[in-house]
Order: sequence, then structure tokens, then C-alpha cells
Amino acid sequence: MYRTHTCGALRIENCGEQVTLAGWIQTIRKFGSITFVDLRDRYGITQLLFGETLNKQLEETPLGREFVLQVNGTVTERSNKNKNIPTGDIEITLTSFTILNKSETPPFTIQDDTDGGDDLRMKYRYLDLRRNAIKKNIELRYAVNRSARNYLHENGFIDIETPYLIKSTPEGARDFIVPSRMNEGEFYALPQSPQTFKQLLMVSGYDKYFQIVKCFRDEDLRADRQPEFTQIDCEMSFVEQEDILTMFENLVKRIFKDVKSIDYTAPIERMTWEEAMWQYGIDKPDTRFGMQLCNLKFPQHSFPTKENISAIIKSDFAVFNDAETVIAIAVPNASDYTRKQTDELTEWVKRPQIGMKGLVFIKCNTDGTYKSSIDKFFTPVQLKNIATTCHANSGDLILILAGAEEKTRKAIAELRLEMGKKLGLRKDNEFKLLWIIDFPLFEYAEEENRWVARHHPFTSPKPSDIETMINNSPIIENAADYLKHPYANIKANAYDLVLNGNEIGGGSIRIYQKELQQKMFEALGMNQVEQQHKFGFLLGAFEYGAPPHGGIAFGFDRLCAILGGSESIRDFIAFPKNNSGRDVMIDAPSTVDEKQLNELQLMLNTKQ
Amino acid sequence: MYRTHTCGALRIENCGEQVTLAGWIQTIRKFGSITFVDLRDRYGITQLLFGETLNKQLEETPLGREFVLQVNGTVTERSNKNKNIPTGDIEITLTSFTILNKSETPPFTIQDDTDGGDDLRMKYRYLDLRRNAIKKNIELRYAVNRSARNYLHENGFIDIETPYLIKSTPEGARDFIVPSRMNEGEFYALPQSPQTFKQLLMVSGYDKYFQIVKCFRDEDLRADRQPEFTQIDCEMSFVEQEDILTMFENLVKRIFKDVKSIDYTAPIERMTWEEAMWQYGIDKPDTRFGMQLCNLKFPQHSFPTKENISAIIKSDFAVFNDAETVIAIAVPNASDYTRKQTDELTEWVKRPQIGMKGLVFIKCNTDGTYKSSIDKFFTPVQLKNIATTCHANSGDLILILAGAEEKTRKAIAELRLEMGKKLGLRKDNEFKLLWIIDFPLFEYAEEENRWVARHHPFTSPKPSDIETMINNSPIIENAADYLKHPYANIKANAYDLVLNGNEIGGGSIRIYQKELQQKMFEALGMNQVEQQHKFGFLLGAFEYGAPPHGGIAFGFDRLCAILGGSESIRDFIAFPKNNSGRDVMIDAPSTVDEKQLNELQLMLNTKQ
Repeated sequence: MYRTHTCGALRIENCGEQVTLAGWIQTIRKFGSITFVDLRDRYGITQLLFGETLNKQLEETPLGREFVLQVNGTVTERSNKNKNIPTGDIEITLTSFTILNKSETPPFTIQDDTDGGDDLRMKYRYLDLRRNAIKKNIELRYAVNRSARNYLHENGFIDIETPYLIKSTPEGARDFIVPSRMNEGEFYALPQSPQTFKQLLMVSGYDKYFQIVKCFRDEDLRADRQPEFTQIDCEMSFVEQEDILTMFENLVKRIFKDVKSIDYTAPIERMTWEEAMWQYGIDKPDTRFGMQLCNLKFPQHSFPTKENISAIIKSDFAVFNDAETVIAIAVPNASDYTRKQTDELTEWVKRPQIGMKGLVFIKCNTDGTYKSSIDKFFTPVQLKNIATTCHANSGDLILILAGAEEKTRKAIAELRLEMGKKLGLRKDNEFKLLWIIDFPLFEYAEEENRWVARHHPFTSPKPSDIETMINNSPIIENAADYLKHPYANIKANAYDLVLNGNEIGGGSIRIYQKELQQKMFEALGMNQVEQQHKFGFLLGAFEYGAPPHGGIAFGFDRLCAILGGSESIRDFIAFPKNNSGRDVMIDAPSTVDEKQLNELQLMLNTKQ
Repeated sequence: MYRTHTCGALRIENCGEQVTLAGWIQTIRKFGSITFVDLRDRYGITQLLFGETLNKQLEETPLGREFVLQVNGTVTERSNKNKNIPTGDIEITLTSFTILNKSETPPFTIQDDTDGGDDLRMKYRYLDLRRNAIKKNIELRYAVNRSARNYLHENGFIDIETPYLIKSTPEGARDFIVPSRMNEGEFYALPQSPQTFKQLLMVSGYDKYFQIVKCFRDEDLRADRQPEFTQIDCEMSFVEQEDILTMFENLVKRIFKDVKSIDYTAPIERMTWEEAMWQYGIDKPDTRFGMQLCNLKFPQHSFPTKENISAIIKSDFAVFNDAETVIAIAVPNASDYTRKQTDELTEWVKRPQIGMKGLVFIKCNTDGTYKSSIDKFFTPVQLKNIATTCHANSGDLILILAGAEEKTRKAIAELRLEMGKKLGLRKDNEFKLLWIIDFPLFEYAEEENRWVARHHPFTSPKPSDIETMINNSPIIENAADYLKHPYANIKANAYDLVLNGNEIGGGSIRIYQKELQQKMFEALGMNQVEQQHKFGFLLGAFEYGAPPHGGIAFGFDRLCAILGGSESIRDFIAFPKNNSGRDVMIDAPSTVDEKQLNELQLMLNTKQ
């Protein structure tokens, strides 16, 4: 062993001890004939004192930042104590030192606030990982892993590894495929999730399964997606939705406790998908703050049970009159926004990512007057009516978007989040969990005039909707009236867990009856031959006593990022890929030898 | 929840309680107007009693093996107790039952001794996994996983996930490659191990890393290999060989304790590679029994420090005279082997897998006489001399093989194991650990007249051999004299952990100096351009303060199999592949859509 103690271990009680430490040089400070060095390792930083004799040695063998040093010396009380670090009471008065390895000057500083840009940090990821800011993320990730494992173990779950080389059954996202040398012309696929395998484990009677497992999707990468990502994947038998919600909200509460020392004792709210879309315009609302939507006008078929209050915006204002949907939010204490600020908001909603044509605002001034961007179309009384309808208080700023239903609802949801952020209502250290339930089972795919599974093809409808599903044909005779098809109203036995506006987990009670599973595949446009080719093993398994079962999967990378108070998952992954799916550090992917391709009986067919 | 208790939970104390159970029907026994059913789940078996009323219901809704049943009833004391199962004192007197799912008759019986052949069991793996014999293997695997994690956690290791989509750097085994859609004409590779990443984590200062991780090798599969397999992968910084051996023999001892309740307190023997080859003919000897080799004759350059005792086998017997190597073992208490038995042994060594031309035996009869297959060439005194040299006792059977060094040594090692097995000396419930150390750093690749790394290119030579390595050219001027090249005698700072004749783990102290790593790559025939292309990131990392480090990786599948008393890893993997790398249950690999290949810009180039 190269050391007797780590750089985080020594305290005032150790004074007088002869010790050996090893680590990296964080800083070097020369004071006349003596030199101080901060030596760093995973566990902390310890100050080293090079006295006059050793200091002379430094002239022949100079030190530098990030050199790897082994030192011998005596633990000594510091005259100038540093209260900011646990080892700050002591220093090591050195008797000898050895340079174990030298270092070039790093391309960026190894400090919390580094001067390295993203590209440089990715290329030298092994140096970036030295920074305390990243190190604590990686340690937090392990703490979450450990906490989840402990909870699941204590609750009778067992970790069972499922295969990585499986079968390509693209349904939704694209598979990564792996050519098989031994099986000519055939390919494995990397799993998008262990979904069917965990269901088979339930058929096999394993009762409670979990795995913290890599999954793969060959998608065009948005800012915060990775081609390989990690899930906490779980499945249970003989359960109903209620059992799953209880088991897994307690998992997340346990993680809060273990990792963040937060007692999340509040009950976790449950909201139907419909109510989330109505109140927040999104299926993963951030409920750390209110500012719910005021639905002034909307197509009735979207929310059949809700009251349309479009009457109060009747005027000559064509934007509202022509719009399918008009939705408002009342932003608290923002009536004093300047022209510049409201113009900025207008520009913000007109950006291509949001894509609205404009923004209407009404200032509810503290003096009781109203000032709006549509004063010439509305009387003060009308404005007041709108304000009352929006539950706006004096001092609030009402923001209104108008347009096509889907786009407008999405836009106002984004605007609500943006305003929440501007107003400091989305606090990193506040955590709010929320279950979204009762999702629609199907979504309508316009191009193909057919149904697609909203969650995945293994999700069960609500027990009360099974009859509807079995007894009706999935064929949509009249595309324009697809919302009148009985399948449009079937609800899924599915649930998402939302944390601070992020979906951190999602799952469902599964289909376990062969006939219902076949009906589902049929509804998704898969004929019997296809069903057998892709999922024959699952249909087969359902013939031999499949139990009722259900499960959930958590996005582990995102969960860690949110717990770490970050919006970027990349800093919570030791070796992430960039937006082109490249690892710029190892320079992968890369070309391979002709010999390798020949062995796999493959040829490149690249566009010239 | 579909149940109040599992099928393993109820005891005599629960009598009188109203309970709900759910599970699978193991057996059905009708006795006149009543029926007994054994209901099974992961946790156990509980007997159900269908009284007269319910029994009538069974006529309309008959039950069958593997049906999924939910039952309500009262816990009742059994008149006829079953002492073999924990729930054997009680039964459930049913008040109602529901068939949750039916089952076809399974293609084989779900019992410890099943009537299903290997192929059938693989196809219906989800049913095979129901058998108790497999279930306890999967549970043992989880117990090993959990034990290893706990030990490593307590010792300061952190689990850090390394990427699965990496770069192809074939060196030894073949990579599985993964075409990248987003990076035209380029490929990822699946990792054969996280070797370079864990080394980078040491460069990054993570100090103690572990991961229980899938690895991939596209090799032609021998009986007991899988294209994807699991490693317990570990790495530590600022350590020497001794630190690693101590840390990880304690890991294995902890697993013995946690999983098998075995206190493995005995010190673990260490043996040099040379001594293992000398005494056992193999680098992973089973030391549960002795029967060491008696090296009568061998090429001196193979064991320069050992004494050649070929003089005692001088005679007119050409087989010995012409052989490069003559090795004997003394099989205890086997002098009474019949002609048939010695003939069988002769046939055994002549099988192609062993490939020897014949077997010489000497019976050391209990009456003091000797009877051998070479009586006409050796006098009784000569035979006695051989026996004495072989440390054979009265009653032993000496077996002698002669031929070329490498082949003969390998054959006698196999023969020793076979005799150990025949004599019952290789007991499933006895566990013997052994470190093999001081491996050669290089092996000689005859076809290419160059050196290859025996372990891998990142293994450090012994500190005392670094100078030799740096200061000599790796070029082998004279192929015939390769053993005289200084590199032939360089020892590696590497170690294997052997359990009962199986290598369960192996590792090394790594190179952490850029110059030495470059010299190693050069020795393996890699020019500087290749070095940069394949391992530029590692050489780069070594420029910025790489600490001394080393590690080990355990073959998790095999470790579990040995602890489970089995020689086959397949029954310790939930969803294994067959010898052609196929998952016959899901039927993978399989063909993929033309569209998928087009998106990847690939074409099949199959031999017609």
C-alpha cells in the first residue's frame, strides 16, 4: 500500500503520528524558503509542508499541478487553521517525498468553476471527472443506486439479469442491432428495455424482480438524451395499480431519505391524465407552484366534461374568435412588467420551439385598473371579467395564448414553466412528487389511420374497459371521427411518477391474458404472422399460467440529475456521449477493419 | 393485492385466520368427495382443501397443473402433517376460489427431476425457470451479487457504470460491433471488459471502483461459454499486488460466509505459475487433492531450476527415450485396477481431446511386487526406483505419459483431474482457493514471430523487470531461440484466483507510465499510429498524473455455478444462449427489415 491514510482522514487527534499519504497536487504555494502543497484524493485535501531542506530538493525536482505524489511526514497542528475542510486543523510536516507520476499542465483547471468549455471537458473527461462538482454527482449516483437496492432487497425483490443480445422488434423507437457472425445474415438487437423478459420472469413465478440496467435507443438525440441510458426496472406479480403506487412511492421516499436526508412524509398527490392536461397543459406538470391554466375556450371533444367559458372573450378580436383554443395563466405580482419585458415574452412564445403567433397580456394593476395589449377590443369591464375568471389578483399579469388546441396547450404549459422559473418558483431544493394516472390506452396515428400504444403494447386497459376492447373492432372506418371510436376512450392501467415537472418513472399493469394481448397486437396493426414472429414467445408463455402482474421503470440518469439539482443528465454519467452519439474521448464510433466486416458478412452501403 | 399471504408464509400459529392466497397448481389429488391441491409460488407450497361443496364446482370448472389460482379460506391444522415443508402443519380449508389464468399441459414436468431435455427446456425457459432446481440457482446468484456489493461498499468501493457502446480495439478476442446510424460507416463495439474505463477512473481519482457488469465476446462457443457474460469488475489505486490479494480473498471469503455459511478461515495458498505448471501441469490446479506430477524427464529450458531425473527411466523403451517429456502421477489405492480399467484409461488418454498415443502404468502391489505395462523393458528394481521417485505407496497405481512437453503436461493434468474425479476426491461441498502469481508477461506467437500479452496489454511487469523491458528491443531476431530473448523471462505483476480447479478471477497491477505502456504496445507489434488510433485516450490520460493502480475481475457466472455445486454456468443464467449463440426461446438472432439495414447504410454480403 502506498499510504497509511487517505487525504481526508487526518485530524487534530493524529498529531505526532508518522504517516504516508498519496494523491494529486491541487495547489502549490511558495513562501520564501518553505512551500505548502494541497494534496488531493477522492476523500479530501491535506496540506503538506515542505520545510527548508526539502524545499531545496524542489529546485532540482520541481512539482506541478496534478503531479502524483507520495509523501512521508509527521502530522502537525496548523497555526493557520482552515475551518472549511475537515482536515483543516493539521498539516503534514514532510520528511521525504516521491513523485509517482508527473503531469502536463491540464487543458483546464481542476476546480468547481472550471475554465474548460463543454467540448474540451468531454475530450478530457478523465480530467473533468476529477473536479469536485462532477465527483459529487457520481457519488450521488452511487448513493441512489445503493439506496434503491437496499429498499428493493428489504421488500423481497431479487435482481435478475436479463440478456443484452436480444431480438429486434422495433415498435416505436429504433433498435441498435448487432450482426451475428455465427448466424449468417442475422442480427441481435440491444434492448430498449427488459420489458418482455421481466414479464416472463413473472410467468416463471419470480414474483418480485428488479434490475438497474442499461437500455439502448437509436434515436436522433435531443439535448438531454443518451443512446444508452440506465433504468431501475421493476416488476411484481399478483398486484393491482394501488400496490405498485404504494411500493414505489415509498422507494422514492426512501431515496430522498438516504441520499438527501429529506423526510418526504407528505402524501403524494394523484392526478388523472385528463386533469393534468386541463390544469397544466402537460402530462408531467411541475406542481411546486400553482399558476394553473384558465381554459377560456377549447374544442369540446377534448374535454367533454368541462365547461367552455368562451363567452367572456367574445369581441371583435379575430385572434380569439378564430382560435380553436384560448388559454390564460395569471402570473402573480408581475403587473409591473415593462414594455420591454412583455415584448421579450412575446418574442419567447414566437420562437420556433414554441411557435405561437403572439401573446396577449392583461396587467391587473394594483390600483384596480387593467392595462392590456388588446385594449381596443375589450372594455375595462370585459377585462375585469377575464381577470376574475382567471382567478387573477390585483398585481397579477395575465398571459393569454390562442390557436390550435394541441399547440396552444403545449405552448401555455411551456410559458407557465418559464414564468415559474423567472419568478423563482422552481426551487432546486424543493421536491414535489405527483402520480399521473388514467392515461389513454391508445393514441391515434394520423398518417396510418390506426391506433398506437401510448405506453407500450403490453399495458392493460382498465378492467372496466377490457370488454370494450375485446368486443369492438379496432378498425377506424372514418378517420375524421376517430374520437368517436370506442377505443378512443379506453383508459390504460398505467401511471407515471413526476418529480418537479420531470417524468422520473412510468409503468403499468400488464396484459396477462393471451386473447387480450392478441387483440392489442391486432389493434396496433400487427397480423397473426407478425405477432408470432415478434412475440410468439410471450403469447406462448401466456398459455402456461401467466399471473396478473405489473411494474415500473425509473429513468435513473434523470432521477439522479434532479436529486443533484441539475437539469443535465450528462454530468451524472461517468462517460456520456455527445449529441451525435459520439464518445469524443475514446473517439467512438469509429471505422472497423475490412476483415471484421467480412467475418460478419456485411458490406458498407454508404451514400457517396 | 391478490393475496394476504404468500404460499410459504402460513404456520400452525395462523390457524383460524381467514386468508387469501394466489399461486400455481403444483398437484391435484382427489379423494372421493374432496380434493387436495398444492399451491405453489416463489416462497413455498401450501395445501388447499376443496370440501364437498367446492368439489362439485370443480366438476364444472376443472383445474389443471400450472393453473393460476386465487383462493379464500381458513387456515386449518392438518391431520396428516408434512414435516418436509415449513407450511406442512396447516392447510387452507377453502371457501371460494377463482381461476386467474388457465394453463396448457406443460411440455415437461415442473419438478426437480424433470422429463424435459435440454432443447425443450431452453425453448420453454420461462417454464424451466419455475423448477425449484433452477430457482435456487437464480436466488443463489442474487445472494452472491448482494454479498459482493455489501463487502465492496463496506470497503469504500463505488459502483460506477461504464459505457456499453465503445470502440472496437480487437486484441485477442473478437468484438461484437454495433453499426451507428448517425455516424455513417462507423461502428461501436460492445465491451469485452470495462478495462480501459476503469483505469481512466483511477486516473480520475475514484480510488476504488467496482461494477457487476455484462461483457461480450464474439468467440466460437465452447460447451460452457456464453457470448454475453457477467463480471465482478474492480480496480483500486495506490496499491501493490499484496493489497489486491488481501482485499479480494476476503471478498470471496465473505461470499462463502454469506451465501454458503462457510467460514473459510484457512490462509489461501499462493503458488507461482511455474510451480503450478511443474506440480500440476496446469495454471489453475484443483488442490482439493494431491497426486502431484512427478517430472521424470522434460526440456530443461522449460524449468531451468528443476532437476531432470530422466536417468531412472533409461532402458530400451523407445517411447520414453524418444519423448521430450515423461511425467507420472501416483494414483492412491488403485493398484487393484483390472485390465479392463487400465484399458479404459488408455482409451481415455487416446481420445482426440487428450490426444496421447498411449498410457504406461505400474501397479505397486500391496505384496511389494510391481506389475507394469512395460515389464519387458524394466527390471523390478527399476520399477521400484520409479515408484520411489514418484513417492508412490504400496497399493498405488502409477500412470505415466510421454511425448512433447506442452501436450504431455496438459494431458497428465487432465488425467490427474479425471483420476481425482474417479476417486471421489473432487467434492462439490469442499472449496479450496489458491492464488497463482508470477505469470510470464508475454507469450510467444509462433505464426507471427512476435510477443503477445498473456493477460492483457495493460498488465505491468514485475517492478524488477521494468528495466529489462524498457532497455531491450522486443524484436525476436532468431525465432528458434525465442526462449533466450530477455522478454521470455519477464514476469507479470498478475494473479489469478483459482477455486477447485477453476479460474474464478484474474487481474494485475497495471502499467501507469506512458513510456512503459508505449513499449508494451510496441512489443505487441503496434506502431505509433495504431497506438494513437486505438489507445490514444489512455496514453493521453497517462500524461496527466496517473496513479499506480491495479484490479481484478471475477467471472460471476462461473463463481455462482461452482458455489452452486455445478459445472454448468447455463443453469445459473436466467436466459442463456445455446452453443450457436442463439436464444431459442425468443428466436434471436433473427433477420431484420431491409429498412433497418438501409438506415444503417449496410448490405448483407452473405456467401451464397
